[in-house]
Amino acid sequence: MLRFMNDGDFRLQPIGFVRSRIASRDQAPCQGDEGAPDAWIEILAPFVSGLLGLAPGAELLIFTWLHRAERQTLQVRPRRRADAPLTGVFATRSPDRPNPIGLHRATLVEIDGNRLRVDPLEAIDGTPVVDIKPLLRTIEER
Amino acid sequence: MLRFMNDGDFRLQPIGFVRSRIASRDQAPCQGDEGAPDAWIEILAPFVSGLLGLAPGAELLIFTWLHRAERQTLQVRPRRRADAPLTGVFATRSPDRPNPIGLHRATLVEIDGNRLRVDPLEAIDGTPVVDIKPLLRTIEER
Repeated sequence: MLRFMNDGDFRLQPIGFVRSRIASRDQAPCQGDEGAPDAWIEILAPFVSGLLGLAPGAELLIFTWLHRAERQTLQVRPRRRADAPLTGVFATRSPDRPNPIGLHRATLVEIDGNRLRVDPLEAIDGTPVVDIKPLLRTIEER
Repeated sequence: MLRFMNDGDFRLQPIGFVRSRIASRDQAPCQGDEGAPDAWIEILAPFVSGLLGLAPGAELLIFTWLHRAERQTLQVRPRRRADAPLTGVFATRSPDRPNPIGLHRATLVEIDGNRLRVDPLEAIDGTPVVDIKPLLRTIEER
């Protein structure tokens, strides 16, 4: 399957970790706009220079690695509802999926050294962060 | 650094590959709304059941692994402009970044067996696809 690259190239490296009051999947809302709290992201030292230019007020897309997810799941009943029809994971935002990349829209509230405070973030404490991108209003909001 | 999981858990697996008329990075627009063509995504057999429920007209977020990207880059001059100020990659959409995950918004135009035609897609031919999620209008467009 890995036709275009070696295994090493396909490995994510955490650029930081989420520090949140959410301690478990049961406590996490399905989406950030459903009551998720703010959280800190601690960026690891080798990646701090990649933050240059970020400022409070920025709208961000935060990419996490949902380390508690189940990677063998291909179909789910959406939003944890037993009466929902079975749906392919690529038609849902289920955390359980072959590559459990979490996508979170949040506002950057505060920068304190290597730490970013963002609001909201529905990821649990300890979740690895693998990328941060600015929201493109012309595309993600068109 | 891998405090919460073993290396194997941190490895992405392609769920499919992009088939596009774009053959190289030089030919790819910076963003999908800047003249990118439509493209096919060929989903690999083990993951096809994850498509259940997707239908033409769906607005998707397609996650790719930008296999031609440079992972050591932490600062860039945005949009390939020599006169732009140096900016941290996490404040830009540069493909060159520690984890080169591409995020593409596209409309699902057609489904043909294990192939999805999407429009637009600014990824080059052969780019691995690692996830597909439905756009959440309440969040990514709020």
